[in-house]
Amino acid sequence: MGEPRVLTVDMGERSYPIYIGEGLIDQAGKRFAEHGISLKSPILIVTDENIAAGNHLAHLESSLKQAGFTVSTAIVPAGESSKSLTVFQELVTHALQAGLDRKSTIVALGGGVVGDLAGFVAASYMRGIKFVQVPTTILAHDSSVGGKVAVNHPLAKNIIGAFHQPEMVLYDLNTLQTLPKREVSAGLSEVVKHGLIWDADFVAWCDENAERLLALDPEALGYALYKGCSVKAAVVSKDERENDLRAILNLGHTIGHALEAVAGYKQLLHGEAISIGMVGAARLAVKLGASEQVYTVTKHVLSRVGLPVRLPVDLDTDLIMDAMKHDKKFQEGSMTFIVPVAIGRVEINHSVSASLVREIVEQMKQEA
Amino acid sequence: MGEPRVLTVDMGERSYPIYIGEGLIDQAGKRFAEHGISLKSPILIVTDENIAAGNHLAHLESSLKQAGFTVSTAIVPAGESSKSLTVFQELVTHALQAGLDRKSTIVALGGGVVGDLAGFVAASYMRGIKFVQVPTTILAHDSSVGGKVAVNHPLAKNIIGAFHQPEMVLYDLNTLQTLPKREVSAGLSEVVKHGLIWDADFVAWCDENAERLLALDPEALGYALYKGCSVKAAVVSKDERENDLRAILNLGHTIGHALEAVAGYKQLLHGEAISIGMVGAARLAVKLGASEQVYTVTKHVLSRVGLPVRLPVDLDTDLIMDAMKHDKKFQEGSMTFIVPVAIGRVEINHSVSASLVREIVEQMKQEA
Repeated sequence: MGEPRVLTVDMGERSYPIYIGEGLIDQAGKRFAEHGISLKSPILIVTDENIAAGNHLAHLESSLKQAGFTVSTAIVPAGESSKSLTVFQELVTHALQAGLDRKSTIVALGGGVVGDLAGFVAASYMRGIKFVQVPTTILAHDSSVGGKVAVNHPLAKNIIGAFHQPEMVLYDLNTLQTLPKREVSAGLSEVVKHGLIWDADFVAWCDENAERLLALDPEALGYALYKGCSVKAAVVSKDERENDLRAILNLGHTIGHALEAVAGYKQLLHGEAISIGMVGAARLAVKLGASEQVYTVTKHVLSRVGLPVRLPVDLDTDLIMDAMKHDKKFQEGSMTFIVPVAIGRVEINHSVSASLVREIVEQMKQEA
Repeated sequence: MGEPRVLTVDMGERSYPIYIGEGLIDQAGKRFAEHGISLKSPILIVTDENIAAGNHLAHLESSLKQAGFTVSTAIVPAGESSKSLTVFQELVTHALQAGLDRKSTIVALGGGVVGDLAGFVAASYMRGIKFVQVPTTILAHDSSVGGKVAVNHPLAKNIIGAFHQPEMVLYDLNTLQTLPKREVSAGLSEVVKHGLIWDADFVAWCDENAERLLALDPEALGYALYKGCSVKAAVVSKDERENDLRAILNLGHTIGHALEAVAGYKQLLHGEAISIGMVGAARLAVKLGASEQVYTVTKHVLSRVGLPVRLPVDLDTDLIMDAMKHDKKFQEGSMTFIVPVAIGRVEINHSVSASLVREIVEQMKQEA
């Protein structure tokens, strides 16, 4: 299986490595020990029911136990509904009962939901303990870089959270082999996004290699995840707390989050909603003067990796507009959009009028 | 009423001032504006029912509104039970409904409970917004320095939290004039503690000025709060994240927290529990070789400011010992105690045997 790719996310004192390769779960015990994770303090693995039904959890537990760690596991229901304060509190109870102390580590084995949830537990348990991510989805390449962790509130997504950097990320490509087709495409949404905001060559590469990616070819997938993580790492290293530059990572998210909220987080997967949001942002860009090609290439490459590029007609425009007002990008009364000015380059526009956004939402519904 | 005392807590980029004086609530609007708090983003005041029944809340709201701020107020039940995830979630709901955005500020008007609770909301709402403390108790001088915010879990106190520094602290001495006698003494517990760990002269000053402090003489109180905050600021500036030095602030807290947990957070006020805990730590110190005077002076000065120095006989020793195991100072199996080696100087002892602690708890109960 060869040596993994290694990317270091440069966060000063809190820098950490991302390992990307095959068979990394079986090496977890060794890597934890190398990274100075304490053998004396209990480790808590957080995962979901779907993952627990497969064999990755058993492999991870066994690798850590063989290396001498004391391991406890909490299994949460699969899906966005677990990113709640209720499940959060249950995990804190579990952590207390398992005797986790200030030198303990919480390991997130799963996708973005598990990462965000377990990460927020790690960020706030005893005001912050260590955290390791073992992502099992393509989409999680995005949330595994940058330290953003959170749970949802019934009125808004990701509204309760923290910035908490992991000690390391172990990205085992073997965990991705059983992903359903729809989730593969949804995961590639953020991969393509990283190209669209930063690297036109990588967008072209995604187009050329779409079939290999959809077929989960490990070499192509490893490269795409490495590139996606690299772009995100470059951005967050320069701006951890989302004051300015980091906002460019929100390409497609203003409309995307609103669509998820209105559709109930179920009809649309996150990556699908973001895909539609990116097409919307590209449409907006053209309205604001960008070349028509920004729109056609954005739409083409997202289609190529199997993503929806049209807005579901059954979603109410008023509800979509309302949902945007609760978005963190809606700041001091004006609406902020990340606008792609060319493929591989975006700008932050703080004064996009709500009526223009409404017009685009309506147009996208008519095309659907 | 003259100019307030000003103390700067040096936290690098996150340094902030503490103003201590009379009439500061009426100047809040002016000071918020001076400190760059945004006029465009809504402010949320969090306070409790007791405070809301007096006139400080109305003064604060009016001062902020006159300066042009948009103000919303959330009133929580008084007492430790409000430091729960349930009340936390209600506050997040309130913040969302009031339209708080990333540039908004949360103001804690109240004692330690309100400060810890509102502070954790500020720390985690949208992954962290601004926070201003307006303490209304003596005890809150302690929690207003250092950025430790948290809520409780049914199994352990302060177990869910963050480090989140305020923008500033407005300590209006007028709010202290209506404090019940018992709370005055409980508040002075942490003031005396700051002397015991750092400044023998200040311990002597507390002894000499005990009557003035108990009579709430503004000059004496202002000085004592300034000194207490100064010691805490000096410690946390050097060690924000409680890796080492900051632990000395936990003098009296290992036994104290356990007593609070066992007594149910109601029979004993925090300051009272800490007072008994400091006497216990002094007893431990003498057992470990310190001069007998460490014990007699500690006990004397705490008695002088009206605090209990004996352990209630009705508290079960086994339960007290069990409660200590959930304490954050119980790390990797060994018990850590802050031990006063002289008046004004403490050491961190990481290997205090549980049996010695049990012996001291038993002895203190027999003296009661």
